[in-house]
Amino acid sequence: MKIRAAVLEEFGQPLAVREVDLAEPRAGEVLVRLHACGVCHTDLYTASGADPTGYAPCVLGHEGAGVVERVGDGVTLVQPGDHVVTLFAPECGRCVHCRDGRTNRCTAIRDQQNAGYLPDGTTRLSLDGEPLRHFMGTSTFAEYTVMPEIALAKIDKAAPLEGASIFACGLSTGLGAAIYTAGVEQGATVAVFGCGLVGLGAVAGARIQGASRIVAIDLADVRLQSAKHHGATDLLRIVADAPGGGEARPGADGVLETSDAVAWIKAQTDGFGADYTFEATGNVAVMGQAVEAAREAWGLATMIGVAGKGETLDIVPRLLITGRRVTGSSFGGVKGRTQVPKLVDRWLAGDVDVPSLLSHEITLDQVNHGFDLMHHQDGIRSIIRY
Amino acid sequence: MKIRAAVLEEFGQPLAVREVDLAEPRAGEVLVRLHACGVCHTDLYTASGADPTGYAPCVLGHEGAGVVERVGDGVTLVQPGDHVVTLFAPECGRCVHCRDGRTNRCTAIRDQQNAGYLPDGTTRLSLDGEPLRHFMGTSTFAEYTVMPEIALAKIDKAAPLEGASIFACGLSTGLGAAIYTAGVEQGATVAVFGCGLVGLGAVAGARIQGASRIVAIDLADVRLQSAKHHGATDLLRIVADAPGGGEARPGADGVLETSDAVAWIKAQTDGFGADYTFEATGNVAVMGQAVEAAREAWGLATMIGVAGKGETLDIVPRLLITGRRVTGSSFGGVKGRTQVPKLVDRWLAGDVDVPSLLSHEITLDQVNHGFDLMHHQDGIRSIIRY
Repeated sequence: MKIRAAVLEEFGQPLAVREVDLAEPRAGEVLVRLHACGVCHTDLYTASGADPTGYAPCVLGHEGAGVVERVGDGVTLVQPGDHVVTLFAPECGRCVHCRDGRTNRCTAIRDQQNAGYLPDGTTRLSLDGEPLRHFMGTSTFAEYTVMPEIALAKIDKAAPLEGASIFACGLSTGLGAAIYTAGVEQGATVAVFGCGLVGLGAVAGARIQGASRIVAIDLADVRLQSAKHHGATDLLRIVADAPGGGEARPGADGVLETSDAVAWIKAQTDGFGADYTFEATGNVAVMGQAVEAAREAWGLATMIGVAGKGETLDIVPRLLITGRRVTGSSFGGVKGRTQVPKLVDRWLAGDVDVPSLLSHEITLDQVNHGFDLMHHQDGIRSIIRY
Repeated sequence: MKIRAAVLEEFGQPLAVREVDLAEPRAGEVLVRLHACGVCHTDLYTASGADPTGYAPCVLGHEGAGVVERVGDGVTLVQPGDHVVTLFAPECGRCVHCRDGRTNRCTAIRDQQNAGYLPDGTTRLSLDGEPLRHFMGTSTFAEYTVMPEIALAKIDKAAPLEGASIFACGLSTGLGAAIYTAGVEQGATVAVFGCGLVGLGAVAGARIQGASRIVAIDLADVRLQSAKHHGATDLLRIVADAPGGGEARPGADGVLETSDAVAWIKAQTDGFGADYTFEATGNVAVMGQAVEAAREAWGLATMIGVAGKGETLDIVPRLLITGRRVTGSSFGGVKGRTQVPKLVDRWLAGDVDVPSLLSHEITLDQVNHGFDLMHHQDGIRSIIRY
């Protein structure tokens, strides 16, 4: 079938919205009609050419939600009419990782997916007869996509699909980091560095887990106010000329300003640090702050952001010897098919205000504008509606 | 009273065995007649002047065992005749950390101890009328010491004191790292980088926990053979011109030689890595290897070695995002008064062959020779007998 899709033709160039060919789903595959797709930093990162594992040409997009249109032979996990969230992290249910409660790193189709192909090593996408690769196994900057059934999470039809789309990446990543990876505990003190969609998810996840204090750290007022809405008890704006050394001053809007978030967090916690810290910017210097701000004796620093190529998180080993722990996760440690539906249910139960995270609604033709909005840190998440 | 003790008079110079004055124990303090004391790298590190927190003059030594001689007012935890292991990491039982099962970082006397004083801010040691500071709150390179009662672990009198002494630091640190900090599980795959006393303790601790495979990595044959004795299932000698890329060759003695321990461990574990890795050298490059060799999805790398001043462990964040965890502990996370006696009981029950770890017996006058033996990596542990 002919579909419209945003194609990454050349790194560093705007995406081109083209009419491409999408072949029918083969065995184990599913044709999904997409209704909404979030525009995520990972799309922009790949489009820029900065990701050394990136490839082109391909159809970008991975934060999608839609409705199953047709299924290929042998598909049992979904059926036409099901509402689904696309999973760049599939869940086969059978591999060594799917059978273990500690991880979501399904190995079933990893190699083919990383190379841009569906599990059988081929592509369903083509442009003018030339094959186009699938991005992250999803390619959801498109009206339709064909995906493996193990990479679709069937969700409650009561969930509006534009909101459901952000469970395909950013929101689940943040919620999951707090709930599944870190396992924030009732009464814990939490610090979240960076309050984009992922960080806001971590704030909301920490609140759901019963954290008693949640410090949200960012540069931008809009994100800090959103953090407050999602459960942050303390807002901390980083301002270069604000006081450091554990001090902060109230800004014009009453939000506290400091030049040194680590010192402020320590000063607020008897010199110890936060029980749980989360890094959601991808900046390795901020990652280092998240480690330092984690509590002596048992603090856990969870890395969520994706660092630039070749960058390292440099840790003074004494921080570890004195009891801090450092970890990370992809997709928040969420097992996609079994746990994304539960996270969506939490939204429907009123535990997370999802619509407040959808800041811009755009069309597929405006996808590059979505990148611009992200680049200018305008809003939390732009959603393409098909 | 007059006692003989090894005094650090000047950084970088040999210790001087002097007759020093030791005052009577005050309230909450205990006079211990030392029977044995291990010579540990931390003593050498401080004596060298490399430790930025070091001070002189002081009486060095912290790996001691002996018998309680007299107690000060109000002492209830031990009585004369009790056999004790000295604890540089005390356990007050009351502070925020002692009341928490996750950590051994007692805060009760930390500040005074770090400054070289007993909890009341004074010293019981003096030389020619000038005060001498206590090292690590222990100062066990001496015939007697005065210590806080909260820093003494009362052990079974059936345990020979020369063996008990290494539970005061090195052995407990290694055992505890595997048992308490990492919590190695039945059937786990383990890799231990560095097989000095601490690393050998980690090997033994992993065996006690039921690990099914324990890879011991070192440069020296004597340490690798000791690792085998303590439970290592695989010995790996690092040789610069040996094969890398997952390959190893048998050396003349049959021990496998490789230039790349990480690649070999991955090759032996379906490309994944070890469930638990331990770093017991203090070399930050080796720490990095321990992180890399930890298993994708749930591997835990535990840092035990003490790094040099200013050095950092540099981690590619992707290793964390894909599910590895990094932690560390001091004194193996062992709560001294409550858990050291249990570790000693394990020795008495036959779970650890302690005498095999005591390689040299020396006198107090030979303490600098003990440093030389360590410097030349001769043997596992030298023990001063008083």
